[in-house]
Amino acid sequence: MINIPKRGFETIEYESRLENIQRLMFESAMDVILLTTQVDIEYYTGFKTQFFQSPTRPWFVLIPSKGKPRAIIPVIGESGMRETWIDDIKTWMSPNPKDDGISLLTDSIKLFAKNYKCMGVSLGQESTIRMPQSDYEELKNNIPSIEIKDANLILREVRYTKSAAEVDKIRHVCQITSKGFIDLEGMLKVGLSERHNCQLFKQYLLALGVDDSPYLVSGSGRGGYGSIIMGPTDKLIEEGDIFIIDTGSVFDSYYCDFDRNYAFGSATDMAKKAYQTIFKATEKGFTECQVGNTTSDVFNAMNTVLQDGGAIGSTVGRLGHGLGLQLTEWPSNTANDNTILKPGVVLTLEPGMMYLPGKEMVHEENIVITEDGPEWLSIRANEELPIIR
Amino acid sequence: MINIPKRGFETIEYESRLENIQRLMFESAMDVILLTTQVDIEYYTGFKTQFFQSPTRPWFVLIPSKGKPRAIIPVIGESGMRETWIDDIKTWMSPNPKDDGISLLTDSIKLFAKNYKCMGVSLGQESTIRMPQSDYEELKNNIPSIEIKDANLILREVRYTKSAAEVDKIRHVCQITSKGFIDLEGMLKVGLSERHNCQLFKQYLLALGVDDSPYLVSGSGRGGYGSIIMGPTDKLIEEGDIFIIDTGSVFDSYYCDFDRNYAFGSATDMAKKAYQTIFKATEKGFTECQVGNTTSDVFNAMNTVLQDGGAIGSTVGRLGHGLGLQLTEWPSNTANDNTILKPGVVLTLEPGMMYLPGKEMVHEENIVITEDGPEWLSIRANEELPIIR
Repeated sequence: MINIPKRGFETIEYESRLENIQRLMFESAMDVILLTTQVDIEYYTGFKTQFFQSPTRPWFVLIPSKGKPRAIIPVIGESGMRETWIDDIKTWMSPNPKDDGISLLTDSIKLFAKNYKCMGVSLGQESTIRMPQSDYEELKNNIPSIEIKDANLILREVRYTKSAAEVDKIRHVCQITSKGFIDLEGMLKVGLSERHNCQLFKQYLLALGVDDSPYLVSGSGRGGYGSIIMGPTDKLIEEGDIFIIDTGSVFDSYYCDFDRNYAFGSATDMAKKAYQTIFKATEKGFTECQVGNTTSDVFNAMNTVLQDGGAIGSTVGRLGHGLGLQLTEWPSNTANDNTILKPGVVLTLEPGMMYLPGKEMVHEENIVITEDGPEWLSIRANEELPIIR
Repeated sequence: MINIPKRGFETIEYESRLENIQRLMFESAMDVILLTTQVDIEYYTGFKTQFFQSPTRPWFVLIPSKGKPRAIIPVIGESGMRETWIDDIKTWMSPNPKDDGISLLTDSIKLFAKNYKCMGVSLGQESTIRMPQSDYEELKNNIPSIEIKDANLILREVRYTKSAAEVDKIRHVCQITSKGFIDLEGMLKVGLSERHNCQLFKQYLLALGVDDSPYLVSGSGRGGYGSIIMGPTDKLIEEGDIFIIDTGSVFDSYYCDFDRNYAFGSATDMAKKAYQTIFKATEKGFTECQVGNTTSDVFNAMNTVLQDGGAIGSTVGRLGHGLGLQLTEWPSNTANDNTILKPGVVLTLEPGMMYLPGKEMVHEENIVITEDGPEWLSIRANEELPIIR
């Protein structure tokens, strides 16, 4: 029986996150950071709700240079926020087209941004501001003497290394999902559609104990598939098809993100060889996942194998990425990324290659970096392409 | 057996959407609209992918004043976009921290924005721009002679009235989910946690034929619940609890959004009366859902019942909203919204009230407005609070 990690975090974990970001804020001469996204808000407050799926209401959290975060949120979230470690909570009745929290937010920023006259906001790559652009512009107009700097670099830096408790949650969802994939080999059926096979898998993962599988994508085709982001469709699986399922399942807000490939009836030598190549690339990438190496070292190790194995191209633009509260997080395994690996960093290794025009083979595993080297979080895929007969 | 609607749409449906927005663009003197979100892009192109869950790559679609949309997207999406009705597709290899599509986007905007020198972007309420703010600012700097206007009002206007094919999908997911809720009454168990009960329900809905239930939230408590957006938690359901499940399930990208309440063992007279009140409010709201009436008429009809029924407050800020490709869409049923109802408008009726301090009762149904009056899309809830013994 799998040991289920405790849900939530001790308060000390939030205190540590706050301490980390406040240290970086001090170095960047930032008085306050404005958070607007579900992930950033959950990370610093523990406020966990699916309600961000409704685009109607903005949610704000301010991290001051000293002291605990202040939540500025719609009344509908007040009782939930009161159950977190946050005690400084301002609310307004939202939706309010005339003033959806902007005046409350303005007052608080003015209060906090006194030392350096500087506010951090996520501006850079992979970030968005989750509030109407017109409200953001009004806010900036309300605080003309306060400089706005990009907080994206320091926010992602804090989230980059995972605590033991975070790694436990990711490992747990990786292990459950791995078990699902292993059993899936006996469940997949020729003659069922991609969609039908994926729905069976999603139901099975839920039964195994994931909270959800919000990302569950598949592709299939004779001798190989042409996309790894579009399905599942109603296409029926036939003998001779290769089928990929890629899943981001979740336990207590933390993701796994990996895939498995299956051939039906038979597979071409080209496909078998491509599978061996990407498997070997994962092995090589794994060995490079050492403290002090970089994401580009990991990329180069995998990419060499892919080139030697006859890759004629790729559509993905990278060979893996960070993983945690999001399906994909900073950094990226690319030639120029050069992010230094540290203990607690969780990555996907995702070598992929086009081996024939329009035919891709992509493999993915999840790992964590420790002082003693890398650890597989997912249960390693088959060394050879599984053939379902 | 439920008749399953055809997936996707005929090309004529996309042509009609395009014609509608281009007519409004002409009236607003807009040359081009920039789309960045999953929902807007899917609505105008039919490009359907779960991949927007990865925040890494931006995606762009431009709607010119004449002719078909242009997609400017990462290479990873090219093969998928080629299967839609869009034929004008520019790609770049993303992620690219130096230029994540911005130069391609700049060139295309300059090409399209010649008549009025004006580009529409979603700036207003309930909208966000899904690209890094620094990229958006760079883009604006690249096109200093092109005015930027809010396209939010005209984009939401086009999506406001649903086609028959859209309504069929929403009705389908409403019907499946209603059946799930009816059967749930026999499945719910005292002694199981909120989470466990919700997971059983999610698995059951998948088995019944929803694509997913991305939003599945619950609350419970002795004599009533205090929040409708936070759970499910590990709290065990006990005799005397009232339990709410609210779900946004999806079929072919279209949502339902409604809830059901259950009491365990017994219910207080206060709770029973609150349930009768919100049920009656839904009846009154429904009768007001006539072409030519407004969302505020619907609000007022429901609110009067709630006030007469002893409401001591509310945390939600509205009594229902639009529904379609998003769990919640414009408009809102509020005192001041005043949006005129038209045939094809899909709404939730969501009366909610606090009947004791910290105890809420919320009920929700989904309806569509036709020339002949409103139609329930969800199967009507029990007239009395169901008591599970």
